[in-house]
Amino acid sequence: MEILEQRILKDGAVKEGGILKVDSFLNHQCDIELFNEMGREFAAHFKGKVTKILTIEASGIGIACVAAQYFRCPVVFAKKAKSLNLDGSLYTATVHSYTYDKEYTITVSSKFITKEDTVLLIDDFLANGQAMLGLIDIIKQSGAALLGIGIVIEKGFQSGGAKLRQMGIDVYSLAIIDEMSPGRIRFRKS
Amino acid sequence: MEILEQRILKDGAVKEGGILKVDSFLNHQCDIELFNEMGREFAAHFKGKVTKILTIEASGIGIACVAAQYFRCPVVFAKKAKSLNLDGSLYTATVHSYTYDKEYTITVSSKFITKEDTVLLIDDFLANGQAMLGLIDIIKQSGAALLGIGIVIEKGFQSGGAKLRQMGIDVYSLAIIDEMSPGRIRFRKS
Repeated sequence: MEILEQRILKDGAVKEGGILKVDSFLNHQCDIELFNEMGREFAAHFKGKVTKILTIEASGIGIACVAAQYFRCPVVFAKKAKSLNLDGSLYTATVHSYTYDKEYTITVSSKFITKEDTVLLIDDFLANGQAMLGLIDIIKQSGAALLGIGIVIEKGFQSGGAKLRQMGIDVYSLAIIDEMSPGRIRFRKS
Repeated sequence: MEILEQRILKDGAVKEGGILKVDSFLNHQCDIELFNEMGREFAAHFKGKVTKILTIEASGIGIACVAAQYFRCPVVFAKKAKSLNLDGSLYTATVHSYTYDKEYTITVSSKFITKEDTVLLIDDFLANGQAMLGLIDIIKQSGAALLGIGIVIEKGFQSGGAKLRQMGIDVYSLAIIDEMSPGRIRFRKS
């Protein structure tokens, strides 16, 4: 997605440790006009009827909520922390974070994803794919159908995208970075 | 806001310990059409020019991002956890959570709220007002102007709303609950 790639080049910064800082428009400050463009792009790609968009807190939520307007469906976000407001039957999955080198549990109330649903996963970043594998685990527990995965920025030099595509999943990333270092970002040609 | 009150009566549930469960449309599953209605309502109330909407992760983000479309401004969300992606100059504030009886630190990069900004705070719940006081602290550090606070559900029987209004702040809550117990919710007349 050309305007996203241009924005990453203009406002993004590559830091030590493989970190791409895009906090001025994506995951701390949120450019809502850009989010709308991204939502339209996801809707143009994923043609099947989506009944639920599933994402994970926190930075996936804004993108998912704006995108959901183009799918006319609700958003469900998986919770990372134990919440007093969660009770009843729950789906849980364990996610390993390479960034922070720790495991955490994600939770979704079983009321909100059922076998009647067709789910689109949306998230801001795809790197090792651990968060997506956790959400896919939850979708399997629910019996719902997975339509695909919409990602804003995929780190193509990490294994998540390849792993998920090998599973036969339609992974649509709006920008795929194949190589980056301070001062230099190379995108995959679409 | 009539449709919100009706929705709380229809789908909300009051649980022991003063907890109102509205996870089917507000803070776990998100009804995006309702979020749009809420955003329009906030925009109808807050007339001044808003340059930034500030909220706090996680459940404020979706509401803030959808509402921001009616203010044509970016959203900034305060982070609760330390993030590798945060560096440079930061505003921090300490928030006491009565629900979980612990203190946590919220953080906003100083790049995204400056003295040029006019800020609208948005959140899903207002109870004791601790999270809002933390965000107000951050706004003060930045030198920005505070236009007001938009809340989806205010627990009018807790002290946050009164405290903030005594400070002269325009607090606009779409639904104010003055009394609740299992099976019964009484809203404040507007």
